[in-house]
Amino acid sequence: MDREKIIRLLNRVRQKKISVEDAFCALREFPYEDIGFAKVDHLRAMRTGMPEVVFCQGKTIGQIVSICRAVAKKNNAVLLTRADAAVFKAVKRAFPSAVYDKLAGTIAIRKKKTGLHGKISVVCAGTADIPVAQEAAVTAQIFGNRVERLYDVGVAGLHRLLDRFDRISDSSCIIVCAGMDGALPSVIGGLSSCPVIAVPTSIGYGANFKGIAPLLTMLNSCSPNVSVVNVNNGFGAGYIASLINRKNERF
Amino acid sequence: MDREKIIRLLNRVRQKKISVEDAFCALREFPYEDIGFAKVDHLRAMRTGMPEVVFCQGKTIGQIVSICRAVAKKNNAVLLTRADAAVFKAVKRAFPSAVYDKLAGTIAIRKKKTGLHGKISVVCAGTADIPVAQEAAVTAQIFGNRVERLYDVGVAGLHRLLDRFDRISDSSCIIVCAGMDGALPSVIGGLSSCPVIAVPTSIGYGANFKGIAPLLTMLNSCSPNVSVVNVNNGFGAGYIASLINRKNERF
Amino acid sequence: MDREKIIRLLNRVRQKKISVEDAFCALREFPYEDIGFAKVDHLRAMRTGMPEVVFCQGKTIGQIVSICRAVAKKNNAVLLTRADAAVFKAVKRAFPSAVYDKLAGTIAIRKKKTGLHGKISVVCAGTADIPVAQEAAVTAQIFGNRVERLYDVGVAGLHRLLDRFDRISDSSCIIVCAGMDGALPSVIGGLSSCPVIAVPTSIGYGANFKGIAPLLTMLNSCSPNVSVVNVNNGFGAGYIASLINRKNERF
Amino acid sequence: MDREKIIRLLNRVRQKKISVEDAFCALREFPYEDIGFAKVDHLRAMRTGMPEVVFCQGKTIGQIVSICRAVAKKNNAVLLTRADAAVFKAVKRAFPSAVYDKLAGTIAIRKKKTGLHGKISVVCAGTADIPVAQEAAVTAQIFGNRVERLYDVGVAGLHRLLDRFDRISDSSCIIVCAGMDGALPSVIGGLSSCPVIAVPTSIGYGANFKGIAPLLTMLNSCSPNVSVVNVNNGFGAGYIASLINRKNERF
Amino acid sequence: MDREKIIRLLNRVRQKKISVEDAFCALREFPYEDIGFAKVDHLRAMRTGMPEVVFCQGKTIGQIVSICRAVAKKNNAVLLTRADAAVFKAVKRAFPSAVYDKLAGTIAIRKKKTGLHGKISVVCAGTADIPVAQEAAVTAQIFGNRVERLYDVGVAGLHRLLDRFDRISDSSCIIVCAGMDGALPSVIGGLSSCPVIAVPTSIGYGANFKGIAPLLTMLNSCSPNVSVVNVNNGFGAGYIASLINRKNERF
Amino acid sequence: MDREKIIRLLNRVRQKKISVEDAFCALREFPYEDIGFAKVDHLRAMRTGMPEVVFCQGKTIGQIVSICRAVAKKNNAVLLTRADAAVFKAVKRAFPSAVYDKLAGTIAIRKKKTGLHGKISVVCAGTADIPVAQEAAVTAQIFGNRVERLYDVGVAGLHRLLDRFDRISDSSCIIVCAGMDGALPSVIGGLSSCPVIAVPTSIGYGANFKGIAPLLTMLNSCSPNVSVVNVNNGFGAGYIASLINRKNERF
Amino acid sequence: MDREKIIRLLNRVRQKKISVEDAFCALREFPYEDIGFAKVDHLRAMRTGMPEVVFCQGKTIGQIVSICRAVAKKNNAVLLTRADAAVFKAVKRAFPSAVYDKLAGTIAIRKKKTGLHGKISVVCAGTADIPVAQEAAVTAQIFGNRVERLYDVGVAGLHRLLDRFDRISDSSCIIVCAGMDGALPSVIGGLSSCPVIAVPTSIGYGANFKGIAPLLTMLNSCSPNVSVVNVNNGFGAGYIASLINRKNERF
Amino acid sequence: MDREKIIRLLNRVRQKKISVEDAFCALREFPYEDIGFAKVDHLRAMRTGMPEVVFCQGKTIGQIVSICRAVAKKNNAVLLTRADAAVFKAVKRAFPSAVYDKLAGTIAIRKKKTGLHGKISVVCAGTADIPVAQEAAVTAQIFGNRVERLYDVGVAGLHRLLDRFDRISDSSCIIVCAGMDGALPSVIGGLSSCPVIAVPTSIGYGANFKGIAPLLTMLNSCSPNVSVVNVNNGFGAGYIASLINRKNERF
Repeated sequence: MDREKIIRLLNRVRQKKISVEDAFCALREFPYEDIGFAKVDHLRAMRTGMPEVVFCQGKTIGQIVSICRAVAKKNNAVLLTRADAAVFKAVKRAFPSAVYDKLAGTIAIRKKKTGLHGKISVVCAGTADIPVAQEAAVTAQIFGNRVERLYDVGVAGLHRLLDRFDRISDSSCIIVCAGMDGALPSVIGGLSSCPVIAVPTSIGYGANFKGIAPLLTMLNSCSPNVSVVNVNNGFGAGYIASLINRKNERF
Repeated sequence: MDREKIIRLLNRVRQKKISVEDAFCALREFPYEDIGFAKVDHLRAMRTGMPEVVFCQGKTIGQIVSICRAVAKKNNAVLLTRADAAVFKAVKRAFPSAVYDKLAGTIAIRKKKTGLHGKISVVCAGTADIPVAQEAAVTAQIFGNRVERLYDVGVAGLHRLLDRFDRISDSSCIIVCAGMDGALPSVIGGLSSCPVIAVPTSIGYGANFKGIAPLLTMLNSCSPNVSVVNVNNGFGAGYIASLINRKNERF
Repeated sequence: MDREKIIRLLNRVRQKKISVEDAFCALREFPYEDIGFAKVDHLRAMRTGMPEVVFCQGKTIGQIVSICRAVAKKNNAVLLTRADAAVFKAVKRAFPSAVYDKLAGTIAIRKKKTGLHGKISVVCAGTADIPVAQEAAVTAQIFGNRVERLYDVGVAGLHRLLDRFDRISDSSCIIVCAGMDGALPSVIGGLSSCPVIAVPTSIGYGANFKGIAPLLTMLNSCSPNVSVVNVNNGFGAGYIASLINRKNERF
Repeated sequence: MDREKIIRLLNRVRQKKISVEDAFCALREFPYEDIGFAKVDHLRAMRTGMPEVVFCQGKTIGQIVSICRAVAKKNNAVLLTRADAAVFKAVKRAFPSAVYDKLAGTIAIRKKKTGLHGKISVVCAGTADIPVAQEAAVTAQIFGNRVERLYDVGVAGLHRLLDRFDRISDSSCIIVCAGMDGALPSVIGGLSSCPVIAVPTSIGYGANFKGIAPLLTMLNSCSPNVSVVNVNNGFGAGYIASLINRKNERF
Repeated sequence: MDREKIIRLLNRVRQKKISVEDAFCALREFPYEDIGFAKVDHLRAMRTGMPEVVFCQGKTIGQIVSICRAVAKKNNAVLLTRADAAVFKAVKRAFPSAVYDKLAGTIAIRKKKTGLHGKISVVCAGTADIPVAQEAAVTAQIFGNRVERLYDVGVAGLHRLLDRFDRISDSSCIIVCAGMDGALPSVIGGLSSCPVIAVPTSIGYGANFKGIAPLLTMLNSCSPNVSVVNVNNGFGAGYIASLINRKNERF
Repeated sequence: MDREKIIRLLNRVRQKKISVEDAFCALREFPYEDIGFAKVDHLRAMRTGMPEVVFCQGKTIGQIVSICRAVAKKNNAVLLTRADAAVFKAVKRAFPSAVYDKLAGTIAIRKKKTGLHGKISVVCAGTADIPVAQEAAVTAQIFGNRVERLYDVGVAGLHRLLDRFDRISDSSCIIVCAGMDGALPSVIGGLSSCPVIAVPTSIGYGANFKGIAPLLTMLNSCSPNVSVVNVNNGFGAGYIASLINRKNERF
Repeated sequence: MDREKIIRLLNRVRQKKISVEDAFCALREFPYEDIGFAKVDHLRAMRTGMPEVVFCQGKTIGQIVSICRAVAKKNNAVLLTRADAAVFKAVKRAFPSAVYDKLAGTIAIRKKKTGLHGKISVVCAGTADIPVAQEAAVTAQIFGNRVERLYDVGVAGLHRLLDRFDRISDSSCIIVCAGMDGALPSVIGGLSSCPVIAVPTSIGYGANFKGIAPLLTMLNSCSPNVSVVNVNNGFGAGYIASLINRKNERF
Repeated sequence: MDREKIIRLLNRVRQKKISVEDAFCALREFPYEDIGFAKVDHLRAMRTGMPEVVFCQGKTIGQIVSICRAVAKKNNAVLLTRADAAVFKAVKRAFPSAVYDKLAGTIAIRKKKTGLHGKISVVCAGTADIPVAQEAAVTAQIFGNRVERLYDVGVAGLHRLLDRFDRISDSSCIIVCAGMDGALPSVIGGLSSCPVIAVPTSIGYGANFKGIAPLLTMLNSCSPNVSVVNVNNGFGAGYIASLINRKNERF
């Protein structure tokens, strides 16, 4: 994968500066570390230029804190998603600077502050969609982006959106979270000239199928600038928006 | 079901103006006529105050013309839906006044003209939705309603809709046909103060599932004035809109 | 959207009765008010001629009471849906005239009584469908309609329906709530000459899929006067029926 | 499986009337005959007391005629389902007494006439359901049942059914074929005191899913005497109804 | 519906033995009685020759006991399904002879013993299917049928079924309950010459979809004598089997 | 929407340089032009900075050429998608410089050449996915991006991908088209540090459901930089990738 | 089924060494024993050469212990799956040598140790998939196979898998457990030359549908050596892998 | 991946027997050859010990012949699947020894005969399943396995299977193809002690969903030795069975 590094290595073999065995190990060695129950992927940060993220749901508090410790040794920032108050309490003890966003269910650990760049907008249709929107917004922020929030502007009261649209019209990426009929991304897609990332939420009932109805709406959007992530996947949307916004900068 | 008529009948039995047998037959006789392969339902017109409609798909041309003849004897107007050119040719021979709408696939037979009342609007999102919209519009017209058409005003170019919205804002009912993401009825529902009948169309591809995606969108509409009919059911929407518009008048 | 108002405004600009800046703001200002967590849409009442409705599920009691207060300042009537006893207790304290319908889960707040008009019928198939039917009935009533209830008349015992059908045959709109096989709207649609709004309920088991089976039955109804709303959406049905019934009157 | 036959056989082994080898073969031999491409199951007729049935779809004309020949040698009657005109032409040549029902797509071969017993009724909702209904009716007839047909009596025009219901109220089994909303079996189930076999047909469009909507309706029927067979499976319904009707008689 | 009764009534009108008003009422009067929250359908027993059944799930204990009292006045037997221990305790107090089957969740109330007739077999695939099978068996028994049970004979150990098959081979109807792959009804259908009623159960996991997988298996059965009822619908299967078995007898 | 333009207009009203009526019309006029059957949306190009795209499927050749003419008057480039040879023949006559990509089914019309910028990579899993990949690639090219193609590198032969990965590792966006199991975007997402747009294709059979299986795979991707568009929507992917790549430049 | 045994029996009949009745019973007797609520299938062990397995979910602790006792009398090893701590406590009392694997939810009872043979690898994508993987691994071990575990090597970090792949490349069968996108089996299938058994897990959210998304991915795998078992069915995978590995050996 | 080969290479670098550049290329070079439209994967044969397979569907005859030529140069055997008569005609011209199996749609090209080993059985339920079964059988044969066929032994006539079961009871793997209810693999799984590979076929109608019903049946099989491949995937089943049967031998 890394042409120059390998050629340099082979040259050192040729120059007998390194044994065959060591060269073989170097070829094979990948920079991750085994902490018993999960392989912490330091490479990902190197590879993607992003802080590490810990998905808390389904892990014990002990596991979460251990992972955080391993990660924080080598990264400036750690983001925990789907975290509840009990997780926060334990993490806070280990990392006093940890910041909890209760609505989003996220914990942000940052060793040093970094400036915010560009502009990502996070829009949601109803008040019930706010937790997902907030997860996207917090994610985008910890990855160093300026974030504009525009909440509760569903299509059933179009004037609420149109009235405020100029606040977000200069974004480099707009994240739109919606449940129910999932119609908002199509409308925003038609009004804007940047990529729109649509996040279906599981808000709704009956033939909503826990978010599948808005998911289908969004996949079928007649606005061609809309792409879609999984139901309630606020983190994913914030992450992709960060990649789009920060494209030309190094972390 | 018909209290007075039955009491009158019973009185006539009591007065021996009618034999028991005849009374029994009168009780049992329902006003339809058997033409062999289908029971033509004259009662429906009486019961619902509407002309008869013939659904052509899956019937032979001979059957269609026979049904039209039986129906036209007792009704002022007949509407044929899902009719192709061959059907029209045969119907035209039997009913020279028949009018064909190629786009909608409808044939209208009217013995005498009737005035148009009220206002029903028919809106569609894209040009591909026009056949369904046109079926709704033709249906509404033959049932005596004034119809306003507003086509190709999908949500991806919202200005096209907003610019012309005042043409339909005074309707007694708005029919909205849309495929793809099916987002248009939610937007129109939010802008208007009359019932909106949403018609999903089978326009779209991939995760559209031949109209199921917009059907779900519409059922989950966050505008509370939206009700839904089956995919491509332009006729049903035109029919229901007629019932709403003509509520206070007799045919 | 509002031709005359805008022209009047422009005239005032021309007459220099208003500054350009103020005119711009007036053009932009939409009549809603921000109470922090949700935008209360006063415009909707103006636009649709209907009282405001508060969907309680997923909101805290504090939020609900705040919204009610904001809404009640500018409306004669407020309807709360999906409300439980705890919500009612808090609302009652703020609005002593509030009336709770436990079965329907609705709370009605009315500042002054208004007369009831027209006739909307609400029919349901089984006793288990009553909560949904009742939500529809209460909604229709608070919006000023006379309501006739006909409960527990499912098609498995057809005589129960036929025996009482004349009580509802003169409705301007019939709402039919049914779970299980969802067959009732088709039967009532065939018997009546007004629009029928079908509400699938989540009553049933096995291949019922929490209301999806009756939803499909209703969408495929062979009676052309049937349109459909989402599963358990009694409120939506009551709302649309009100729009149909009150079409020619101003609130 | 056949206690007496085996004990008799064992006795003959004991009495040395039969060799061990022959006894072993007798135990193993099942009465079917291999004609190369399909195993004709003579045993089924013995086991079930029914003529053999040949499902033509997907078989070549040559295969069909061969199977018929093999079957007819040992059965009084053969029924071919899903047969077209070309199949009939070839079968007619081999069996001059073969009778074709074009609507049902069935061919009946009978060596000697047999009397008809009992009463099975076959009902269908619309004219488009007739082919499936007719397949059920022809099947029931060739298996020796008297059949009453009641076609085109869908629930949207209930009077058509109620008016004629006494023609079928004394059936030992009622087969009800319906597409669209599939509501007819529930209504008939409620009116009758015998088993009802519901056959969904693939008639309908949009959210009908080629018969899945009426299939779900029927499985969720609120009439407890309704059981269901696969979409368009007229043959299966006719077959089961025959088993019910002929329960107490030997063929 | 009842030709002779109506003609007799009309004759009495003619003979002035009955007033017109009374005749009208007689024509209209249906034999059910309104106890406030549910219409108890006495007619059904008359119409179908079956005791009344009370579905307990979703009803309060008070409602259940009231319904039982109303029903028991006019029927010899009452069956309660989906009843738990608390329901039984209350019912027992009102009807000391009530018998509870905990596994099936059924309560049987019988005023006088009736003999058992014919033979219905109830088979199930695994031990987890027993509650559904037992509901079917208890139902069949209270309706006066002799019942043979054959439990835990799934197709993965075919010898268990084949070994005991002669116990059920002379049934007039076989009920087969199975979850998981739902393969048992096809196998039993092929072995037997009577109608088989297949009951999918919600036993299974993963791609089982709470009984939908075995439901589909059964609808697609290659044995033509298999018809299907809804998932876990043991009662329905027992009821239909009773209709089949008791066809020629009056209750 | 356009603050300055409106304020300028209001100033001109104030200065009486424009009549109130004309100002009103100016406020209402949107820059599109009606050519009878479809509203050509010139605004979109202004709004989004992109050439116009014509979706040919379902339009007549005459309609397509007319739309092209209207569009080409005001745009430098036009892209036609889902075009067959017959469409190309007619378009070529009107626009001799039109270029047809048979595999992609696209026609590109460009009035003057423009330079190519950045780097978008288009990857596909199998040869059958190439048409969709090619539609994405052609789209990206006409919108002014440099495009790198990497075809037939599915995960079943991972070495094919790994061997060539350095060709695409410096892309600003990677489009990945895959049918069958749809696993490729997850693998590429894990290897790269830019946004990945996943395009499910309808290649596959059985439980593939015409692209739904890979669609689900992609929505559930464990690589957080993957967003998804509709099945076979190569155009959409190319369009979004263009927006990401050209973010900082004006057209 | 057992040619020689039957012939031997028949010979003994012929030699009058056994009575006809006894011979009949011998023919019929199948080696299972009825313990009241479930038929313990000793034959299966004989037939399949495998220890007996008890699926605990849905059984009472009393039932489980009874079954274990009956089984352990005739088998060297018993495996309990889906067992919780309470079950273990009771089993431990009866079988002091029982070993509990909490993660897998399995209990292993072994009367005497047996050597381990061959090599089965068990791979999983994420830490959340470990319980399913562990159930597969424990199953394979108790059936006498050597097991290599490779956990947390999902495709989003491909290097983790590639780095360690040589640990499993010489397996006779690889079991791959994955939730989310389910892409891992395709990748491993492409890298290996032995059968791969894919186990979808219910890990994921939104459009994951509790394991259905990875199930579809795996069924559509483009690696032809992948076959699939039901969601979370670790036991089944371990069992099949054992059959493959131990093919040539007798237990 | 190939430890020794890499170490040998590194040693040669060290010994300067090979230049750094050449070593780099050797590390990178994968043994496939680009023929323009598809990458032929010679490595797969090396990696998996299997001949190459060409899936013809969706490829032109020219492409197919070119791929065959490239493949045949380096392999002893080539298998073409989903091939029609026209493909065969062209392939026959290039490879006169090619053998066509019309039923299976396969073409086998073999340079030299190889002996057949072990025993794989291929079973199918109905005659309509034979094409899929035959594809599996031909695949297994060309990969050097002895194949036993047992066709048309569906569960509706169980004796046909039981009578012949000893022909397959000693297989090292049994492939079972079934459409309709898909019940056969469960039955065979219960009777046998080797792995069973279940292949759902798209034979059936109505609620069969083109093979999805039997697919679900098989995934839910209560026999634990059943794993499943995609609908109609006879090739995959034959391939996996070959891997199982030939496990201990080199090609």
